[in-house]
Amino acid sequence: MFNKILIANRGEIALRIIRTCKEMGINTVAVYSTADKESLHVRFADEAVCIGPAASSESYLKIPNIISAAEITNADAIHPGYGFLSENANFSKICAEHDIKFIGASPEMISKMGDKATAKATMKAAGVPCIPGSDGIIKDFKDCQKVAKKTGYPVMLKATAGGGGKGMRAVWTEEDLEKAWESARQESKAAFGNDDMYMEKLIEEPRHIEIQIVGDQTGKACHLSERDCSVQRRHQKLTEETPSPFMTKALREKMGNAAIKAAEYIKYEGAGTIEFLVDKHKNFYFMEMNTRIQVEHPITDEVVEHDLIKEQIKVAAGIPISGKNYFPRLHSIECRINAEDPYNNFRPSPGKITNLHAPGGHGVRLDTHVYSGYIIPPNYDSMVAKLITTAQTREEAINKMKRALDEFIVEGVKTTIPFHRQLMDHPEYLAGKYTTKFMEDFVMSKEYDDEE
Amino acid sequence: MFNKILIANRGEIALRIIRTCKEMGINTVAVYSTADKESLHVRFADEAVCIGPAASSESYLKIPNIISAAEITNADAIHPGYGFLSENANFSKICAEHDIKFIGASPEMISKMGDKATAKATMKAAGVPCIPGSDGIIKDFKDCQKVAKKTGYPVMLKATAGGGGKGMRAVWTEEDLEKAWESARQESKAAFGNDDMYMEKLIEEPRHIEIQIVGDQTGKACHLSERDCSVQRRHQKLTEETPSPFMTKALREKMGNAAIKAAEYIKYEGAGTIEFLVDKHKNFYFMEMNTRIQVEHPITDEVVEHDLIKEQIKVAAGIPISGKNYFPRLHSIECRINAEDPYNNFRPSPGKITNLHAPGGHGVRLDTHVYSGYIIPPNYDSMVAKLITTAQTREEAINKMKRALDEFIVEGVKTTIPFHRQLMDHPEYLAGKYTTKFMEDFVMSKEYDDEE
Repeated sequence: MFNKILIANRGEIALRIIRTCKEMGINTVAVYSTADKESLHVRFADEAVCIGPAASSESYLKIPNIISAAEITNADAIHPGYGFLSENANFSKICAEHDIKFIGASPEMISKMGDKATAKATMKAAGVPCIPGSDGIIKDFKDCQKVAKKTGYPVMLKATAGGGGKGMRAVWTEEDLEKAWESARQESKAAFGNDDMYMEKLIEEPRHIEIQIVGDQTGKACHLSERDCSVQRRHQKLTEETPSPFMTKALREKMGNAAIKAAEYIKYEGAGTIEFLVDKHKNFYFMEMNTRIQVEHPITDEVVEHDLIKEQIKVAAGIPISGKNYFPRLHSIECRINAEDPYNNFRPSPGKITNLHAPGGHGVRLDTHVYSGYIIPPNYDSMVAKLITTAQTREEAINKMKRALDEFIVEGVKTTIPFHRQLMDHPEYLAGKYTTKFMEDFVMSKEYDDEE
Repeated sequence: MFNKILIANRGEIALRIIRTCKEMGINTVAVYSTADKESLHVRFADEAVCIGPAASSESYLKIPNIISAAEITNADAIHPGYGFLSENANFSKICAEHDIKFIGASPEMISKMGDKATAKATMKAAGVPCIPGSDGIIKDFKDCQKVAKKTGYPVMLKATAGGGGKGMRAVWTEEDLEKAWESARQESKAAFGNDDMYMEKLIEEPRHIEIQIVGDQTGKACHLSERDCSVQRRHQKLTEETPSPFMTKALREKMGNAAIKAAEYIKYEGAGTIEFLVDKHKNFYFMEMNTRIQVEHPITDEVVEHDLIKEQIKVAAGIPISGKNYFPRLHSIECRINAEDPYNNFRPSPGKITNLHAPGGHGVRLDTHVYSGYIIPPNYDSMVAKLITTAQTREEAINKMKRALDEFIVEGVKTTIPFHRQLMDHPEYLAGKYTTKFMEDFVMSKEYDDEE
């Protein structure tokens, strides 16, 4: 087992990893930017190294600084968390070159799965169902027209380098294709320096359902069932749950097997997630693979009664998995609490938390790096806490989430607590009938606004 | 199901009950003394009624005030929590007379099980193993001598009205009997206004292991396995765990069956606990029954994946139990965090909490009514929080408890956090070999004192 792990991340996920390391008796090194020196991940790690100024490009993304911190502290492994360098093939490679175990995917796997068009081709070869569309990159507009005809409208145009909805266009008729093609390419070029596009069939009434997998160094993989992440705003997940209210035993078996097939085909090592789009007829299509731990992993922790970060560390240390799959024994929901104003188009609301009271009691888990007096820096993403409730049934987990949200007090900044509270009363959510389009029609009701 | 429940208690247990009521869609009424008006149980209840001044005898023990509060607010049930009126037969009777459902035992059951000598006679009749000793109250010193001879030294003299170690004497030889008899009676008379004594065989290397049971209105009972509460200081429990490290499958079956036999013999309705002393040969003896929810019930919640307060409310509403028993799937530990100075003979330390940071993350539960800025009144017991960790194994639960204790910050008052942190490193505790005598030899090490 590792002696010392450096956590190349910040915020709640850095603290999450430190907690598990402590429980495993592994020493920890936190790294931090000057903006984060008061964060709990710095306080609770055994050692902490400042790696640069607030800007991510000069700190959390600065590979030489992180490698230096690992060498100075004699860390034998690096856990990248999510975001930042977690899916950076070059970082994974440099860690290996410095004889530091990267707790994540190999450079080859990251390269293979990081580029969406290449990932899709790989999955097709593995026999995993993929969304009909272009074979990789579209050559030109003429090719685009041909592929759209073959795929059948409606279609989605997507930038291969895309993310967060950028460089993405839905096209419903042939007449609209050219305009969408041009504007998506321009947007992608501007955002990513790359205007390569691909095309997919647009899935109607889609749900985003992902399968958690863990693969070991022998090439064997298992699945830990699904997470339903369909409640998204501009492709950003807001709340997740497991099991999916849309899931059946037969569908879970099919999707689980497909995910294992995908992981074993590429001999995937570590924790990973295969994201699928599922249509209303329960057809499912590979969307992308995340070769890292995900924000929403705690709901899986809760329902399969294992610690996913621990599993990740164990397989990185060469311990083989048992090979059996894990199924949800309970129902778990996560609400991402962001410092954003849900009454004002979810505008970020950084600043000082003047008062914080955490909810508690039976079936309530809170993962957060913030506290009363903490100043949320404006430099990073706005998530300040993950509130997770777990119970025997979906209804009980929702009722638990309502009362936990009611107890959760954060003063000094705006948060998405009122949004989640309202969501938990929404008839469509309660019925479990939401799709990825759910948020398009969602309007905040003023009755949840304490300040009214 | 009930429409509105009044919680005749304070502190963490009042909040615990309010949380479950909210999750069940039941309205809640908090009652509070003037000393408790800033407590969270008052803040989070739907309604709150002040029932008197700080002194318990004028508020939480004042039956007419509580009944009035229930009548004013139109509550159809009263949950008494633990302590205060929870095992008061008269209160249970008065509730029934006012057509308010008492969520607890009937007056008859409380009377039967509340008096220790009567309880023992009842259990003997039910066929539950009891500690050899006197048949009820000892008539006089001559009788005392006779019973001691028959029972065999060492023996324990105990006051029938006793509690918290008062009126209790261990006697190792016949020469010491008379002195012990006199002083125990005097102490009991002074403390309880009653000097009735009984005698029991003194159990060597005893463990305090209790069985949680739930009985319904049809007279059927089930058990929810055991809790080991052997770590006690002056008969006050400090930490509890389930499963007991001393337990075997065969012993659990025997003790579970005995507990069910006891409950069904008296047609017990509600949640209750049968406390046993277990000797080093795994003989077990009935000690007493608590006809109420217990402080340490959350560890059972966690390992059997049910909410015991919910089960209590359900059987009180007439819903029958399934009849099956529940077994621990996980390992759970509770540390009672008291506002006491463990470096100064556990002296109470009331006052203002100037800063509080709650531990969180995977497998950590915190039940508390306090917060940053809260003033702990000197009028009640000193427990301010219950910290519960749950994991796959005992070792993992202990490691989780260590890191949760390390994260738990309470400033402004002294707490027992350093004691628990030290306990979690103690070789005897780690080996699971502790008995109820464990604390007699325990000395706090200064190395855990942050202020040194």
